[in-house]
Amino acid sequence: MSGIAFEIAARDGRARTGVLRLPRGEIRTPAFMPVGTAGTVKAMLPESVRATGADILLGNTYHLMLRPGAERVARLGGLHRFMNWDRPILTDSGGFQVMSLADLRKLTEDGVTFRSHVDGSRHFLSPETSMEIQRLLGSDIVMCFDECPALPATQAEVARAMRLSMRWAERSKAAFGDRPGHALFGIQQGGVTRELREESAEALKAIGFDGYAIGGLAVGEGQEAMLGVLDHAPGMLPDDRPRYLMGVGKPDDIVGAVLRGVDMFDCVLPTRSGRTGQALTRRGAVNLKNARHADDPRPLDPDCLCPCCRGYSRAYLHHVFKAGEIISAMLLTWHNLHYYQELMAGLRDAIAGGRLAAFAAAFEAARAEGDLEPA
Amino acid sequence: MSGIAFEIAARDGRARTGVLRLPRGEIRTPAFMPVGTAGTVKAMLPESVRATGADILLGNTYHLMLRPGAERVARLGGLHRFMNWDRPILTDSGGFQVMSLADLRKLTEDGVTFRSHVDGSRHFLSPETSMEIQRLLGSDIVMCFDECPALPATQAEVARAMRLSMRWAERSKAAFGDRPGHALFGIQQGGVTRELREESAEALKAIGFDGYAIGGLAVGEGQEAMLGVLDHAPGMLPDDRPRYLMGVGKPDDIVGAVLRGVDMFDCVLPTRSGRTGQALTRRGAVNLKNARHADDPRPLDPDCLCPCCRGYSRAYLHHVFKAGEIISAMLLTWHNLHYYQELMAGLRDAIAGGRLAAFAAAFEAARAEGDLEPA
Repeated sequence: MSGIAFEIAARDGRARTGVLRLPRGEIRTPAFMPVGTAGTVKAMLPESVRATGADILLGNTYHLMLRPGAERVARLGGLHRFMNWDRPILTDSGGFQVMSLADLRKLTEDGVTFRSHVDGSRHFLSPETSMEIQRLLGSDIVMCFDECPALPATQAEVARAMRLSMRWAERSKAAFGDRPGHALFGIQQGGVTRELREESAEALKAIGFDGYAIGGLAVGEGQEAMLGVLDHAPGMLPDDRPRYLMGVGKPDDIVGAVLRGVDMFDCVLPTRSGRTGQALTRRGAVNLKNARHADDPRPLDPDCLCPCCRGYSRAYLHHVFKAGEIISAMLLTWHNLHYYQELMAGLRDAIAGGRLAAFAAAFEAARAEGDLEPA
Repeated sequence: MSGIAFEIAARDGRARTGVLRLPRGEIRTPAFMPVGTAGTVKAMLPESVRATGADILLGNTYHLMLRPGAERVARLGGLHRFMNWDRPILTDSGGFQVMSLADLRKLTEDGVTFRSHVDGSRHFLSPETSMEIQRLLGSDIVMCFDECPALPATQAEVARAMRLSMRWAERSKAAFGDRPGHALFGIQQGGVTRELREESAEALKAIGFDGYAIGGLAVGEGQEAMLGVLDHAPGMLPDDRPRYLMGVGKPDDIVGAVLRGVDMFDCVLPTRSGRTGQALTRRGAVNLKNARHADDPRPLDPDCLCPCCRGYSRAYLHHVFKAGEIISAMLLTWHNLHYYQELMAGLRDAIAGGRLAAFAAAFEAARAEGDLEPA
């Protein structure tokens, strides 16, 4: 263990709020990590990402190893210097994306051979190479290399992938070695089957990690099934270590998961939606493509203090989206990330004050009210 | 005349530096106006455009009348509020772009009928409608409606277009009326023919404008021919009024034109180049696409203080361009606009100090030196 400190300051039901301390900075939990796939949070400057309240970013090992290459990033001083972000970075292991994006995959006990979707070049990822690539990138929180089966999958297939992932978790730990100031997180698998989740949690705890991720969700099982898993999965993991729900999610997914004891999240939704004209607000999603906004002088959310809502009308946002202007992605991404970080701050504050149930009820009520009536 | 004040503070040879005062702000001259075609300086937030040192933006009447529409912009409070820029805006008349972008144009003494390149809808532009559209947009500096013939053109064709433009200038002035705090600029035409330029200047002076543009250049005649025209054209225009060279240009075009007495410029080059991986620096153009930058840890320009040069390596800029990331356009556009504004500040300072010749020589020497040697 690297001795990364995680301090839980307050609890409310199963929810917790606290701080994960890393040499590059503190991560206030529950935390949302914007996704900076290829060395950039798309359409944002890093100082703007920080201004939204983000304490940590996520980088994708699969994308970065293919372009610009982990050795190159290391020669250039590491991912933090490369992308001009000096706070913590979590990198995934590449395991999920090699299965969803790469061509001609071949999986063995040893690892995965694949061809790059960028240039067709041949690569190999294993627990050992994933640890080495994440070390070269300079990641603060390193994820174990795992296999996340694509849905639909049989229970036998989910069990096989989970057990392989547990053997890989042991190899990841051995390969990670002793790196003071850097954390290694294990990843629980097991799909929606409680017994498999328990078996996975026991295997991870026996190895011992700085934090524990809940993997294999947000892959098409639906919110009800996901929350069903979260009714028991977080409790299987050590109480005194951060719990990270990978790839989740929509605002209501996050609230549901925080209520069930999850501490960390990442998702492309706020950034990806920002590039397709979709805003995420306290009143739900708003599609700026819709012609009903063309003459609307009001901001997206009159109560939001982000630069998009303080400076621009819905009419402007509609116009620049229709005209294909880059500022459309810049403003909507900023708003969406601001909203997500504001949601996380609200959750932290509510847990600290023992009023998470009231916060969750107000969250639901605002969404039920829906978007502003047409102007 | 609207009584817009233009104060020349210092002269150096034919060059001048001063201030054009408008109710929304002062424009330090020589001035470069970034182009905000459709209500946005592409890939920039307006506060970032201001941070580069811009005192005024240019908006395109043709684009804005078609989308989102001038009446709509007016209902939304005008172009300044719409695009979140409270300083001066100059709008062109639509005349140049209707001839270069629209379909099925039909030109008569009255005006131009055309079809929108956006949706095929039918529109009419004339001196009177152009003045009305620019009024609806809320433009601070309004341009006369003119016809700029496409090159190559015969001298007879250039003369015909110039004389039509002078009749349209008179109609523009009449239609503009009396609008305190707003300026109307006439546009000199006449191609590269000195006699036609003189005839055009006389016609404009007889009408009387707040400022005078030199039109019909930067349309493919080449730098030598352009500077040849600028050897005499600015001197044909009133000395006490600002002179604006439309659509120009490359950094060396601007320096050459300032030396010849021009006060204002606009050009898409810094913004467009920023989206195609081309940086403009004191040492000339740098193509970030080039693989020689892939491992280069140095900034684009080690002496530049813009956020792009302070925060990022050439290797990063190469990577994000190759990966198609939006931040590539954001950073390079910012750098390019910063460089242009720094160039204008240097020109103003050199004129004020009576050392413009030395400034121009140093400008040429840095360009002759060329880009940094490979790392």
